[in-house]
Order: sequence, then structure tokens, then C-alpha cells
Amino acid sequence: MGRSPTRIRRLPEKAVDDRSVIHAILDEGYVCHVAYLMDNRPVVIPTLYVRDEEKVLLHGSTSSGIARAARRGSPLSVAVTLVDGLVVARSAFESSVNYRSVVLHGEGSVLEGADHRRALDLMVEGLIPGRLADVRQPTDVEIRKTAVVAVPIDLVSAKVSSGPPEDDPADLGTGVWAGVVPIATSYGEPIPAPDLEPHLDVPDYLSRYRRS
Amino acid sequence: MGRSPTRIRRLPEKAVDDRSVIHAILDEGYVCHVAYLMDNRPVVIPTLYVRDEEKVLLHGSTSSGIARAARRGSPLSVAVTLVDGLVVARSAFESSVNYRSVVLHGEGSVLEGADHRRALDLMVEGLIPGRLADVRQPTDVEIRKTAVVAVPIDLVSAKVSSGPPEDDPADLGTGVWAGVVPIATSYGEPIPAPDLEPHLDVPDYLSRYRRS
Repeated sequence: MGRSPTRIRRLPEKAVDDRSVIHAILDEGYVCHVAYLMDNRPVVIPTLYVRDEEKVLLHGSTSSGIARAARRGSPLSVAVTLVDGLVVARSAFESSVNYRSVVLHGEGSVLEGADHRRALDLMVEGLIPGRLADVRQPTDVEIRKTAVVAVPIDLVSAKVSSGPPEDDPADLGTGVWAGVVPIATSYGEPIPAPDLEPHLDVPDYLSRYRRS
Repeated sequence: MGRSPTRIRRLPEKAVDDRSVIHAILDEGYVCHVAYLMDNRPVVIPTLYVRDEEKVLLHGSTSSGIARAARRGSPLSVAVTLVDGLVVARSAFESSVNYRSVVLHGEGSVLEGADHRRALDLMVEGLIPGRLADVRQPTDVEIRKTAVVAVPIDLVSAKVSSGPPEDDPADLGTGVWAGVVPIATSYGEPIPAPDLEPHLDVPDYLSRYRRS
């Protein structure tokens, strides 16, 4: 996105730190964008995911393009992007955003049986830690309607862009404001469902919800 | 992403309202995910964009995969996703997020000459309305380093998922809290660059920055 980010090496050569950065980015996010092939054309869609050790688990319907691509062994590409700030540089060229992103590539596998069931639990708990104990577990019909596609965190790269603008020295002292506008995701006061029993309090895991 | 969203029809059949929803989503966002082909495999990456009438303009370096795909007439897919809330349902199956997304497909064209120059201005102003008057304009070298790829907003679909959880009637009244945790993007107090002249005030267009 314009600036020269810190490009973290592909994993075959990575340092331990890199893996922890990749995990941290994947754990803070929960919406990814997945690209797959349909009639030899690329299609990108958003979906929910959760990291499970060295895999990313993608949520979708059984008939989704992602699940169909995985079943036929067609490659997937998955991106998770967290935007941290507007980089307000003195030049148009250096104006950009600060962000952290992970992109991974690989074939997906559609989880079955106990793995599938466990993955659906991880999805709930990944989206809202603490929620799993409260939700009604899926029925067999619901499980059949929901596909989880696992993609290994193997061929992966991460980019991290942070800090103040990197203006050209010739642009300094020109009387133009420069800096960063921090961007954060905020989680508001939970809104009860219209059909909620009135005496029920908001669970702690929702009133204190945050991801970073 | 799990729930049954309002699927807005593809544009050949769309109502006028649909177009305005698509524009509103594209105008609120500024980071998109672009899928392109590399050696017949899909690759997805995040990048900055701005809407220009009935086109989306994608920002990248001249040597980026997006620009190369556009030059060889290879198809692109572009997604913009805005996440509005955690849908806290009583069942795992209905748990999801509220979101608005646009996905478009098409070939990209690399802008040249005056179109390229104008697109770079639109990028600055799209990211931070009001900024264009203050930034130092790009040099010829900077312009050559930066590619803008235009994709028509033509083969496009939008999904909008909003409102409370859609729980199964059998799950109501079970003493489990349900509702929505609103999600918003917040823009913090601008942080001056370390090399900023100390007397410069934060411009109004930054202290009042918001996108929705």
C-alpha cells in the first residue's frame, strides 16, 4: 500500500519472531478474504476464519466456492489485513496507511467428522472467546450445511507497516502538517435482541470484548 | 458469512437503490482485497482504492501483480468489506457478523498520462478529503513508480447483513443472552511526525476525520 513495508521472509527462511507476528495478526483478525478459481478466473470473497495452530480454518456454506475449490484440489489464497493508521505524509507519494497483513497460499481441505465438529467450536470461540459454553451446539443438519476448509500456514508472508511518514528530506519544513491518524476498531455497548428475556445481563465476555 | 444476507442482484437486473448501496459501501471503505492470477493460481492482496464514478481505481506499484495482470488482460476480482457488528446468536449456527460487502469482477486497465495523474489526486483525496490542497504533488519519477488500475463497476454484487440474530424459535427463552455487539472504526487524535515544525496545528480535515 504505497510505502516500503517490512517484508517478513517466507517461512522456509523465517526467524521465530516472524511466526509469532503472523500468529498475532491472524489471531487479532476474524474476517479474511479468500481467492479461489472459478472457470479459471479469480474470485475473492470475505469470510470468517479462526487460526488453529498452524492452520487457518475458513467458514462457509457447504456449497460455497471455497468449499468447492477445496474439494477439487484447486489452490486458495487467503489474506488478513489489519489497518492501524492513516499515514499523512507531506507528499502524495508517501501518503498511505499503516497496516499489518498476512497472505497465505495453499490447497484447502474440507474437514469431516470430529475435525469438522471441533472446527465449528473453534469458530465460535475464536469470534467470541467465552461464548462456546453458552451457545446451543449445532445439530447434524446444521453441521451438514456448514463447511470448514483448512489451509496450512505454510507458504505465507506478512507485511507490517508502522510509524510516522517517511517523507523525502526535501519536503520537510514546508509548513505542511504530517503525522499519523491512529485507526482502531471499537466494540460498542451490546444491543439485546428484541426477543431477549429482559432479566438477562450482558455476559462479561461481551461487555469486555476486545481483540488486541 | 454464515447468515442469509440480502443478496443484491447483479447489476444487469439491479434497481437504482442497489447502485447507491454499492457506491456507499465503496465510498466508506478505502482498503480492498484484489485477486489476480499468477501462474494460473489465485493471489489475493490488500491495496488502497478509491471509487471514481463507475470505476474502482486500485493503487499499486508499477511492478505489482495487479498492474501486471491488468497489462496482460488477465481478470481481476475486487472485494470491499465493512464489518458492522458481532451477531451473538443463541446457537453456534446463527452466530456470525453483520457486514456490508461489494465484490466486483473484470479486467483492469492501467491508467496513463492525464488519467493517471488525475487518479493519483483522487487517491489522496479519497483517503483524506481535503488533503490534496496541502500535499506536495508527485514528481514524474514518483508517477512512474505508481500504477493505478481501473476496474469498471459493472459485474458486481453486494451483500448486506444487518440487524439482530435470526435465532430458531426453538432456541428462544433458553436463558442465553443474544444480541449484537456494534463494531465501528474509530480515528484517534492525530500524532504529529517527529520532524514536524512545532507550531503547526492539526488540520480540520484530520481532527474531524470520519468515513461514515
